[in-house]
Amino acid sequence: MQKGFTIWFTGLSGSGKSTLADYVAEEFRKRNLLVELLDGDVIRNHLSGNLKFSREDRNENVKRVGFVCQLLTRNGIIALASLISPYRESRDYNRQKIKNFVEVYVKCPLEICAARDLKGLYQKSKNGHLQGLTGVDDPYEEPLNPEVICETHQETVEQSAQKIFQVLSSLGYLKIQD
Amino acid sequence: MQKGFTIWFTGLSGSGKSTLADYVAEEFRKRNLLVELLDGDVIRNHLSGNLKFSREDRNENVKRVGFVCQLLTRNGIIALASLISPYRESRDYNRQKIKNFVEVYVKCPLEICAARDLKGLYQKSKNGHLQGLTGVDDPYEEPLNPEVICETHQETVEQSAQKIFQVLSSLGYLKIQD
Repeated sequence: MQKGFTIWFTGLSGSGKSTLADYVAEEFRKRNLLVELLDGDVIRNHLSGNLKFSREDRNENVKRVGFVCQLLTRNGIIALASLISPYRESRDYNRQKIKNFVEVYVKCPLEICAARDLKGLYQKSKNGHLQGLTGVDDPYEEPLNPEVICETHQETVEQSAQKIFQVLSSLGYLKIQD
Repeated sequence: MQKGFTIWFTGLSGSGKSTLADYVAEEFRKRNLLVELLDGDVIRNHLSGNLKFSREDRNENVKRVGFVCQLLTRNGIIALASLISPYRESRDYNRQKIKNFVEVYVKCPLEICAARDLKGLYQKSKNGHLQGLTGVDDPYEEPLNPEVICETHQETVEQSAQKIFQVLSSLGYLKIQD
């Protein structure tokens, strides 16, 4: 049986979390590993339809996703969670709950995230149509000691993914075969 | 790899869902099968802290648990869900979403559930301290075509569990070895 673990991708909107998580998930699938990708936007529909974006609600959302990751991980499944998850409190809560927890800080300067603006959120915020955008008028608490930092403005997706695989390998969660 | 499936235990409060689900889970564990038990009361803390007991909220709660069962099941894990889940709508929603879905109607006359009253809910309802108790002043929609009916007022836990194992076997989800 494969070893379960959770990779928790945290970072600003537009930092590249989903792109990186998608790539990593696909690499696992190629190796015939069982993997579930829990993406923030999708998950809100399924688990947190009634939660908003207050500090309390964001923490609650992060903990719910963490609960699902915990169940998957302890049954040998690889869980990838891709959420802004701006607060240390709930990320650290998940770290304590989940065996084999790997925090990946997807680090990208705000200006670059805002320039990418894939979802149009930064523009909305600028126009006053959105309050509480993380990094703009809502806090983002950087991880203090993440297992991996991926600087997506100066690394390719492949390079970021390689960093992650190296760490997984050194932690004994994954064998690098080629 | 084992085959994943979901057993959904539905029935009134006090009908014996949790007792039966616990027993079945333990039998699976004895066979070294991977199993997760999602019990209604526990799950509310983790996934649905802010949901109440309106029709809408109950349906939402049932669908959230169903979502988790879906993830587990498609990764080869056995998921056991034990919730009153009073409405057909959300149970049938889960049936459509989850591959290998087995509905177990834990059927027990209301008077007997009320006499057991393990959680004191029926007494509270009688005293006017609780509104919306399923079967008393809130509807319970019986399953129309469940895979198994366990009549816990006239069967032992072992007998009910045997019925379930027989059905799992005939559906090809489980091999009965002894």
